[in-house]
Amino acid sequence: MRDMVNLRHDEVPDRWYNIIPDLPVPLPPPMDPVEGPSRINNLPNLLIGECLKQEFSPESWIDIPGGIMDLFAKAGRPRPLFRARNLEKKLDTPARLYYKGEFYSPTGSHKVNTALAQCWYAKQQGFKRLTTETGAGQWGTALAYAAALTGLKCTVYWVRSVFNWKKDRLSLMKLLGADVHASPSPVTKFGKSLYDKNPQHVGSLGIAISEGLEDAEKDPAATYSLGSVLNHVLMHQTIIGLEAQKQFEVFDDYPDVIISCLGGGSNFGGFALPFMGEVLKKGRKIRFIAAQSRVAPNLQGTYQYDFADYAEMTPMLKMYTLGHHCDMEPIKGDGLRYHGCSPILSLLRHEGYIDTIAYPGDEKHVFENARLFIQTEGWLPAPESSYSICAAIDEAIKCRESGETKVIAFNISGHGFLDIPGFRSVLGLE
Amino acid sequence: MRDMVNLRHDEVPDRWYNIIPDLPVPLPPPMDPVEGPSRINNLPNLLIGECLKQEFSPESWIDIPGGIMDLFAKAGRPRPLFRARNLEKKLDTPARLYYKGEFYSPTGSHKVNTALAQCWYAKQQGFKRLTTETGAGQWGTALAYAAALTGLKCTVYWVRSVFNWKKDRLSLMKLLGADVHASPSPVTKFGKSLYDKNPQHVGSLGIAISEGLEDAEKDPAATYSLGSVLNHVLMHQTIIGLEAQKQFEVFDDYPDVIISCLGGGSNFGGFALPFMGEVLKKGRKIRFIAAQSRVAPNLQGTYQYDFADYAEMTPMLKMYTLGHHCDMEPIKGDGLRYHGCSPILSLLRHEGYIDTIAYPGDEKHVFENARLFIQTEGWLPAPESSYSICAAIDEAIKCRESGETKVIAFNISGHGFLDIPGFRSVLGLE
Repeated sequence: MRDMVNLRHDEVPDRWYNIIPDLPVPLPPPMDPVEGPSRINNLPNLLIGECLKQEFSPESWIDIPGGIMDLFAKAGRPRPLFRARNLEKKLDTPARLYYKGEFYSPTGSHKVNTALAQCWYAKQQGFKRLTTETGAGQWGTALAYAAALTGLKCTVYWVRSVFNWKKDRLSLMKLLGADVHASPSPVTKFGKSLYDKNPQHVGSLGIAISEGLEDAEKDPAATYSLGSVLNHVLMHQTIIGLEAQKQFEVFDDYPDVIISCLGGGSNFGGFALPFMGEVLKKGRKIRFIAAQSRVAPNLQGTYQYDFADYAEMTPMLKMYTLGHHCDMEPIKGDGLRYHGCSPILSLLRHEGYIDTIAYPGDEKHVFENARLFIQTEGWLPAPESSYSICAAIDEAIKCRESGETKVIAFNISGHGFLDIPGFRSVLGLE
Repeated sequence: MRDMVNLRHDEVPDRWYNIIPDLPVPLPPPMDPVEGPSRINNLPNLLIGECLKQEFSPESWIDIPGGIMDLFAKAGRPRPLFRARNLEKKLDTPARLYYKGEFYSPTGSHKVNTALAQCWYAKQQGFKRLTTETGAGQWGTALAYAAALTGLKCTVYWVRSVFNWKKDRLSLMKLLGADVHASPSPVTKFGKSLYDKNPQHVGSLGIAISEGLEDAEKDPAATYSLGSVLNHVLMHQTIIGLEAQKQFEVFDDYPDVIISCLGGGSNFGGFALPFMGEVLKKGRKIRFIAAQSRVAPNLQGTYQYDFADYAEMTPMLKMYTLGHHCDMEPIKGDGLRYHGCSPILSLLRHEGYIDTIAYPGDEKHVFENARLFIQTEGWLPAPESSYSICAAIDEAIKCRESGETKVIAFNISGHGFLDIPGFRSVLGLE
């Protein structure tokens, strides 16, 4: 067997997996805060109708419309599953390592999976424009891409501290035809309240979400689109894990450990939840590990109701959170820097199904392990995905020490071609 | 039928196509110049043994060794073939457009195909190190990658004018473990002769080749590796066209026009030659168009014997050439900037099988057409590949005007994630 399994274009799964009905305890619903207007009643004005329906669906499987399957094909799905045999040899580990190649994406990350679905649904509903926020920039690029392919306009509010240094990614969004604002921006009322006090305000994901929401709320032709955290976003991403399950069948193998990095939870959820379903329904034994940064270890926060945004425009979600006004130091893996974790994954964490590890904010260990991966397997991962790799290597080394022949599967959510300055500075490269 | 056809991992062709025995007239052999030592007799000291054998093979089909097939799998082969339906609609053309996704590569270009083959053969022959030149940087990155995967060392001489501004690509080569020198460098005798006169000498591909050759010649553990022009390099790249033929069968379609950009000829040859074989052997009618730059329109040069390098260390090859001391203005698509074209393709051009178009050096038309492609099909091409896209769009527009329902196939040899500053400056983006 060679080190890669690729499905044919006609073998891509055509249903998403919705884990909600299979959860060990009911998922706590969103709640309104005690004071102020109802955020829940306002959701239909903010979210795409079909996505809102999916958010609370009791169905285990949701058919993927043909139009979205067409878009997945245009984006090159399916994506391969690799055996990391060179890395295994280098580590001298008895473990078998597998990684899913979500870096094989038009914008370089898994984010296109839900971006394409959301744009297609938005277009069906008659919207002309989408608004959103972005932190690391992966999500903003993905939505700009999906909007271009579906003939929609796209407005992105981008956390200023990242906007300022990711010039190439900004150009890519512009090449794709998006309008991009550094956030906080003078364009929205909420943004302006912060911008006027400090035009160099570094911003945060919570602030950018508030701006995107406000913009969409004021324009009947626009709708808001979120790239992580919500149930329907994780469900759209389950295409990753569902493909991986088919590919493991071809490899005739099955994971004992599933690892991915976790910010809001979309790539972790997309990769892990189909396997989690087999744990919940069939009693499979799998250990799940979320790889995080110590600057934003939201799974080590408190399990409680909190807002998803800074300006408190969203309903409150029951989730592991560091607090929606939490300050977090910048890191190269900016995509992991969010105060809260998806409610579904938070519940599973609370029930003991997900372990977590958080790496130091200097990112040296993470990037050193990423370099080892690059030099053995040859793929350049995104900084965020480097956390997945790092945790997988650490687990494989434990197997060397214990002699265990575990099967470790990890997701590489994106490539690092637009993030090389990050590698250069952390590793001190020329 | 969806807009993409992907083969399974086990459907990758396992033989290369060698067009030499099928050429309409015999391929003129390399020649020694009238004066000086024999370059031909020195070839075994410069080239990998198996590659040298392939260079003059009379066999039409060469089995790809299992070890190289393993490496192709690690590099994610096969690569998809897409139908550019969004672009067709936008252009309102009756033509059907298809593109091959060679951008799906660990280093972002088709160059890995021959890099992996050459490294594997070099390792079999007992070499410990490879030396090479690079212009745009795609080839140097590919060889650094392939050397890392096969456990070899790699030394790259990189044309200084490009080395100086492609910081991210340099870091990527270093991440992959390569030694990289700006060329002309003080490391080789020939390089030093130019470097000492002018340490900021901008260099050229011809000079860098001379440095790579000299370095390999002095070290018995090292061998030289060339990324284009030579027969065996084009043959390794035929995996592109052979895959595409299988994919066209699934689409139940067949190209009338084959387009690709052409510098030395490796991506053009790799994509086109399997189809050319059907023209030569089965009388298929296909028009072949090489997309070039007016700063280096080597196919509009003279068909004569010339050296492949500046210092005249290589044998003389019968090829279309602008002269091996020709000065060529820098462009963003630096990979197209080489004085000579592969002998095989030169012969076919001479016999009337290949048309050529050369675009102005300001690259505005090329990059505008690339932007149209990005906004409809969503993939970010390399500057070089943008020439393929540009020519395909121009042909599709002619079909709109003539009403012809031609099938136009083009190869996208690489992605542009590391070349966004080029798009920014040519298109005047933020």
